[in-house]
Amino acid sequence: MTEQTTAIDNIEEQFLAAIDLGSNSFHIVVAQLDQGELRTVDVMSDKVQLAAGINDKRYLTDEAKKRGLDCLSRFAQRIKDLPSDAVRVVGTNALREAKNSREFIDEAENILGTPLEIIAGREEARLIYLGVSHTLADDKGARLVVDIGGGSTEFIIGERFEPNMMESLHMGCVSFTKRYFPDDCINAKNFKRAQTAALQELQSIKFSYQDHGWNSVVGSSGTIKAVRNACISIGLSEDRITKTALHALRDKILSFENSADIDIADLKPERQKVFPAGVAILCAAFEALDIKEMAFSEGALREGVLYDMAGRLRHEDVRDRTINAIMQRYHVDQEQADRVEQTALLAWAQVKDDWQLSRKHYDMLSWAAKTHEIGLTIAHSQFHKHSAYLLTHADLPGFTTQEQLQLATLVRGHRRKFPKDEFKTLPKRLQDAYAHLCVLLRIAVVLHRSRSKDRLPAIAFRVDNKKLIVEFPEGWLELHPLTLADLEQEADYLNGADIKLRVQ
Amino acid sequence: MTEQTTAIDNIEEQFLAAIDLGSNSFHIVVAQLDQGELRTVDVMSDKVQLAAGINDKRYLTDEAKKRGLDCLSRFAQRIKDLPSDAVRVVGTNALREAKNSREFIDEAENILGTPLEIIAGREEARLIYLGVSHTLADDKGARLVVDIGGGSTEFIIGERFEPNMMESLHMGCVSFTKRYFPDDCINAKNFKRAQTAALQELQSIKFSYQDHGWNSVVGSSGTIKAVRNACISIGLSEDRITKTALHALRDKILSFENSADIDIADLKPERQKVFPAGVAILCAAFEALDIKEMAFSEGALREGVLYDMAGRLRHEDVRDRTINAIMQRYHVDQEQADRVEQTALLAWAQVKDDWQLSRKHYDMLSWAAKTHEIGLTIAHSQFHKHSAYLLTHADLPGFTTQEQLQLATLVRGHRRKFPKDEFKTLPKRLQDAYAHLCVLLRIAVVLHRSRSKDRLPAIAFRVDNKKLIVEFPEGWLELHPLTLADLEQEADYLNGADIKLRVQ
Repeated sequence: MTEQTTAIDNIEEQFLAAIDLGSNSFHIVVAQLDQGELRTVDVMSDKVQLAAGINDKRYLTDEAKKRGLDCLSRFAQRIKDLPSDAVRVVGTNALREAKNSREFIDEAENILGTPLEIIAGREEARLIYLGVSHTLADDKGARLVVDIGGGSTEFIIGERFEPNMMESLHMGCVSFTKRYFPDDCINAKNFKRAQTAALQELQSIKFSYQDHGWNSVVGSSGTIKAVRNACISIGLSEDRITKTALHALRDKILSFENSADIDIADLKPERQKVFPAGVAILCAAFEALDIKEMAFSEGALREGVLYDMAGRLRHEDVRDRTINAIMQRYHVDQEQADRVEQTALLAWAQVKDDWQLSRKHYDMLSWAAKTHEIGLTIAHSQFHKHSAYLLTHADLPGFTTQEQLQLATLVRGHRRKFPKDEFKTLPKRLQDAYAHLCVLLRIAVVLHRSRSKDRLPAIAFRVDNKKLIVEFPEGWLELHPLTLADLEQEADYLNGADIKLRVQ
Repeated sequence: MTEQTTAIDNIEEQFLAAIDLGSNSFHIVVAQLDQGELRTVDVMSDKVQLAAGINDKRYLTDEAKKRGLDCLSRFAQRIKDLPSDAVRVVGTNALREAKNSREFIDEAENILGTPLEIIAGREEARLIYLGVSHTLADDKGARLVVDIGGGSTEFIIGERFEPNMMESLHMGCVSFTKRYFPDDCINAKNFKRAQTAALQELQSIKFSYQDHGWNSVVGSSGTIKAVRNACISIGLSEDRITKTALHALRDKILSFENSADIDIADLKPERQKVFPAGVAILCAAFEALDIKEMAFSEGALREGVLYDMAGRLRHEDVRDRTINAIMQRYHVDQEQADRVEQTALLAWAQVKDDWQLSRKHYDMLSWAAKTHEIGLTIAHSQFHKHSAYLLTHADLPGFTTQEQLQLATLVRGHRRKFPKDEFKTLPKRLQDAYAHLCVLLRIAVVLHRSRSKDRLPAIAFRVDNKKLIVEFPEGWLELHPLTLADLEQEADYLNGADIKLRVQ
């Protein structure tokens, strides 16, 4: 497709900002694009400890919410002069898990004036790898990257900028502190329980990762940085975490009775509380994956988010690659997908002003057209629902959880009854646009239902007083009675959803 | 696996019965196995018109229910001396569609003393092909088989006994009569609308079927038989339905104003009402698939069910092939699946008497072990749910809809929290057995969680006063602390579902 303009025309010297709402800390980084590389101009962090503020019923407490929103109010000042598509805000495990995160997200979006995107564990892993790999020399061979967060820990194997294996495990320094170190008590038994639980989690990747192998190991983020610094300050190692140093550090920690007592130079007080759990997880990782030593990289999730944005600005959107990959994986009839996409996008161009459709909607419509038939791989019956299931649940690198749901909703609605209620599950501000996109997709599908290679005639789409009018050259519909019958049925379906379609 | 006994030891000279609860008619056929071939000894049919008794809200009316159950009471006498595994009862489209079919099924099962299985459209297509192919000479080349039923129409392309393409479309002579021939009025407009609707349905298979191609076309079941007989009795053709004869028959039908008036020799009065709709569907099939002539076969769904049973008795269960095929399609780690299966079945053998588990349960446990990881193809996160989704919705040749749900429930429950409520969706008589099977699967999965090739020690499973006891050789668990931790967690999970597990 040819339409490739963006709101940011001069992408060089562009400022970009990424905000990462982690389970332990919130971070903001502002950077300037310079010859395709990012130069950091501002960073801020705040140990909000969102995960610590999730109660037993998996609700975010009011205090934790307030801590988070107060922090975002401060961050908001840093981004107020940036265009909205130069800012990305991502939430991870704590917001994935909390049952009431919807409320928090709505308030956060109000404060920041930009959407807050929840990303799935594997997408988090992909972005971490992207951030880390941009800080490393361009050496050869596979790298293992480990990132211990507050609520999840990511393990990635990749080469250069390409991640090959990505996994996010349900263990983090905040959640493990709550579970295995009650009242911040340190003793051999608590430590052993935490380490065993981490080993249990690691079983799911241990064999496949060892099979793949790697040449070097790099850690990122606060926990591993604190361990590295502690090893250096105690004199256990010079710049990296060796197995011997880690075990000596563990023994030192076990010599204290409470995490408040831990006395290690350079270990910040707010890190102390979650440090024993972090060390237990790292010990388990060293053991399960037989790691001898680990370097540290300053790159992390937020840098990955920035590089991902920069890639999109250069029209290297990883989401395009993802969509092409799943079309292959699920054996999509490529020619049919192309025909439907082309017709849907031609319609988009004709109605976008009336329906206020943006470039982002254009991308979504294109991806929906490409993937609407993936569910056929499961069964023909109700395949639109199977397509939507796959788009909702598959790992789609580059897509946020919300984007997956938006795409799934479009595809879910592409045939049979128009599922009005499904669109109500989207954020209010998106509902009209997505219902309209779905109508365009449906009509494109109807027009290509015969799967014929014959070109369609010139079809005019226009919006008149809330009604969509689809005009065919005179006489064409009479010669194509099946298409006419399909369009009449389509008008009935849409009528049931209070959308008016006129075919003439 | 070695256990291969069945309740029927002498499979030759065995009597088998199949009952087909079609949307238009119910049929029973009793046959005797003779050198691998079936010799029909008894048939009965009853035009119950179940689909005609489904109201606008998709509920089966009391009258239709009564007609159906009365018919089954008569059929019940024919099967009362047969062992229960020599009888299969299948329901098709009307029972797939009616919202209250559960009640009907319960009462029907009481009357017949055997389970009533609902089969999906493609499984119906597979069984029809099996029935038809056994009536035909063993010629070479592809055949197209068409079966117009009361609520659905099946199209199958196959060679010899192997179906290659199967589809079931939502159109049938009963449902189309209701929709397009109100008050049994015949006129050109009604007929055209019915035919156009059928052509719309046929678009979804037209291109792929024509791409595949065939050498001969065969029809089966009542509608096509009635058309064939009408063509012969009017003198339009000698033994098969030609395109010319079909069009002449259509014109003759259009010369009547009401289906009650249709006057064609040998056309039974109860067929008259649904005949115009049946002819319209057949005309559409001839047009969309460019059929020149169609032979008729006496084989149909019920014969297919009999041959499928006979195959299972000879240990050629198509379900085994299906499971192997989906393991391939979804790239299952075959060695891991084998390990889990072997351990689960060893456990089954030790507890089957206490828990009253049958050979059928053995098969289900084996299939669940083989498929429990198929969901990994979608995503690692929550993959047990993805596996269950695929098993519920995929076309699984040989499986009934209920069997797919039972298998999906087992697999859904194989890890994380024990989903007690899911088992409550199964028929009451199956709930305990399937919960127990799931426990065996879970423990087998836990024992092989490391994916290690090392053999497990001899493990004893026994049931003591509702408690499952799993005994390891002395000292083994101490040497495998991760397995011990996993088993302790498993005991916690099961405790939450009121199932007691003791590990020692």
